[in-house]
Amino acid sequence: MFITQLFPKGLLAAVALLLSAQLNAAQSYSQTGQLVEKQRFELARFTTFGGKTIKQLQVGWESYGTLNEAKDNVVLITHYFSATSHAAGKYQHDDATPGYWDAIIGPGKAIDTDKYFVISVDTLANLNAYDPNVITTGPASINPDTGKHYGLTFPVVTIRDFVNVQKALLESLSIAKLHAVIGGSMGSMQALDWATAYPDWVPRMISVIGSGQSDAWTTALLEQWAIPIQLDKNWSNGDYYDKTPPTQGLTSALMFITQDALTPAFFNKTGRNLAYSPLEKGPLNDIRQQHSIVKWLKERAQSRAKLMDANHLLYLVRASQLYIAGHSGDMKQALSSVKAKTLFLPSFNDLLLMPYLAKDAVNSLEQLHKNTSYRELTGDLGHLNGVVGIEQAASDISAFLADKQ
Amino acid sequence: MFITQLFPKGLLAAVALLLSAQLNAAQSYSQTGQLVEKQRFELARFTTFGGKTIKQLQVGWESYGTLNEAKDNVVLITHYFSATSHAAGKYQHDDATPGYWDAIIGPGKAIDTDKYFVISVDTLANLNAYDPNVITTGPASINPDTGKHYGLTFPVVTIRDFVNVQKALLESLSIAKLHAVIGGSMGSMQALDWATAYPDWVPRMISVIGSGQSDAWTTALLEQWAIPIQLDKNWSNGDYYDKTPPTQGLTSALMFITQDALTPAFFNKTGRNLAYSPLEKGPLNDIRQQHSIVKWLKERAQSRAKLMDANHLLYLVRASQLYIAGHSGDMKQALSSVKAKTLFLPSFNDLLLMPYLAKDAVNSLEQLHKNTSYRELTGDLGHLNGVVGIEQAASDISAFLADKQ
Repeated sequence: MFITQLFPKGLLAAVALLLSAQLNAAQSYSQTGQLVEKQRFELARFTTFGGKTIKQLQVGWESYGTLNEAKDNVVLITHYFSATSHAAGKYQHDDATPGYWDAIIGPGKAIDTDKYFVISVDTLANLNAYDPNVITTGPASINPDTGKHYGLTFPVVTIRDFVNVQKALLESLSIAKLHAVIGGSMGSMQALDWATAYPDWVPRMISVIGSGQSDAWTTALLEQWAIPIQLDKNWSNGDYYDKTPPTQGLTSALMFITQDALTPAFFNKTGRNLAYSPLEKGPLNDIRQQHSIVKWLKERAQSRAKLMDANHLLYLVRASQLYIAGHSGDMKQALSSVKAKTLFLPSFNDLLLMPYLAKDAVNSLEQLHKNTSYRELTGDLGHLNGVVGIEQAASDISAFLADKQ
Repeated sequence: MFITQLFPKGLLAAVALLLSAQLNAAQSYSQTGQLVEKQRFELARFTTFGGKTIKQLQVGWESYGTLNEAKDNVVLITHYFSATSHAAGKYQHDDATPGYWDAIIGPGKAIDTDKYFVISVDTLANLNAYDPNVITTGPASINPDTGKHYGLTFPVVTIRDFVNVQKALLESLSIAKLHAVIGGSMGSMQALDWATAYPDWVPRMISVIGSGQSDAWTTALLEQWAIPIQLDKNWSNGDYYDKTPPTQGLTSALMFITQDALTPAFFNKTGRNLAYSPLEKGPLNDIRQQHSIVKWLKERAQSRAKLMDANHLLYLVRASQLYIAGHSGDMKQALSSVKAKTLFLPSFNDLLLMPYLAKDAVNSLEQLHKNTSYRELTGDLGHLNGVVGIEQAASDISAFLADKQ
């Protein structure tokens, strides 16, 4: 009763997402009876785009569907900033929610696991470092050379490094080509970088709520997420692993991320359910008290922060800031190498990665006479229309994947 | 040479504003030969909207033009969040820039000082507490009861308190009615609250880049400005006046405010002038280094922070969060008392106080059969179209002021 009062029907999916980066879906992959299993991929030695070495690199991955004999039915899903490789299905039948894109991944769904072998990989420095279902290497990992946590001695990693780890994993499975790569938000960065860096691997690329590069605006906006962590006195220049972690800074960063990924419409609906009022008595009487909507945001951020690492957030901010498709000085020039047919699905009211960013990439691809298309997602959720609202694009995605390249 | 390279023609005005909350204008009030003088207004005892007492309250004010004998030519200008009462003119002939709305305030300008007595007052808890031209009472002031800085013992103040201090000042000048009240952003909150609280005083009200109330979205967004200050270890729960102040937190807050008040278009122009690139070598090689656009933003914030007080920022955030025209539980009901003809001038690409906020207020006024109109400002500067770009509204403002009510 109380719960449904706070989060009526329409908001439930979004709220579930905010809490766990997962969503409810009509039919989950697990409902077919198959449970998802996390697997581990290791590389003894990995050289980053910036030329540094990471030893004993490990990442988690999961897959849905079956790899065919020709090994040519692979759809790679690249995940967004606060997500993991858990794109679909459940680990246990009683999991509260399935993976974040379960609405479009599964038997008979848009990304049909009766046809495709769908695979997804945890990024380096994955935000959810303490999630038992996540395997990642990042600042919170032990540096095998020193036996201590890396902290800020971990090398800067880029979107290209995420791509290269994924490629090494695919090669370890004797896969030499994708059917498609699809990602949302930070996942879209990986998807387009894949198509640019390894054009012979990628016949089809879908960018959801994405961009072609991080412009000055986006880089400054992403910096806002790093700042509260760096201000937290417990951050200690990233050297907090045997001490109290910078939980307040991390919580604040997650509050910013949540708001940036949503819209006034969503907040004001939530506000109505909280009986938010500008003139609430607590904040009127005491500068230390906060409005109901701020407390709501904070409580959710505190809950999410428990499985996350603050340094990992800084490294994901940096990877996203450094992003330019092709990872050279010129996006358009780099896009000239793309062989994929591409589809861009930004969200019309996205305040985080506004549609102009996808449009810029599409314009460049069109000028280069590439096969590209563009459609805006709708809904009240802004950036999260591409996560919680992804089902609206199901038929577009399905048709795009079925199309001969 | 270097300066003009960094900030070509079109950006100069905006950059000047970001640095000093003032702007260049074709003809400054001071060019008439008249210099502006800051004056002091004192109240022995003031009761806040929240029912607390402030003793020995002081605020600064300035005026342009001459009060007529009937004392019925008064135009009150209410200032925005990071501004002061310095709306027009110069204090010294060699001031780098005049007051922030000098483009529309002066002899022969939209707010014609040959006709009107224009007056502007520093708010309580004015952000620029250490500006020698600002007089304000706030957390940085000495509490006469204790001989110590108030810090967080200063009572929460509201937009209504700013209005009530202005009214007390006007009454001390034997003024009993305004010709008009006009304000931008946080100033628009004061302007509409004036029209709602004291309808017999206000025949004309102009809200520039404004809102009718702080909705849940706005309140959460404003909280983002408070958070970095509260995270700064030097903040010490606001008790830092005899110690190192929370300059890093304050600087971060100003970085957020600057970005929220601008647009991707502005940032990306600035980025081009900085030769910003996503893949800059510094941030690629070292997690501690930052992109050129971040450094640019930070340097400007550091420079502005020097005259500002961090606790004052928290109190202005709170005053803005608590804002609802009329300061009762219901905006529309409160607006029913408005007698003024009203004009709303939001900025079409405002990301801070989006146009829907002004439209909501206009819709309520229309439903109440009030005389109200709405026009969107244009330009590349988002929220700051209402400050730097105000000259575009000159003829609208001039006609609105000349019109019989």
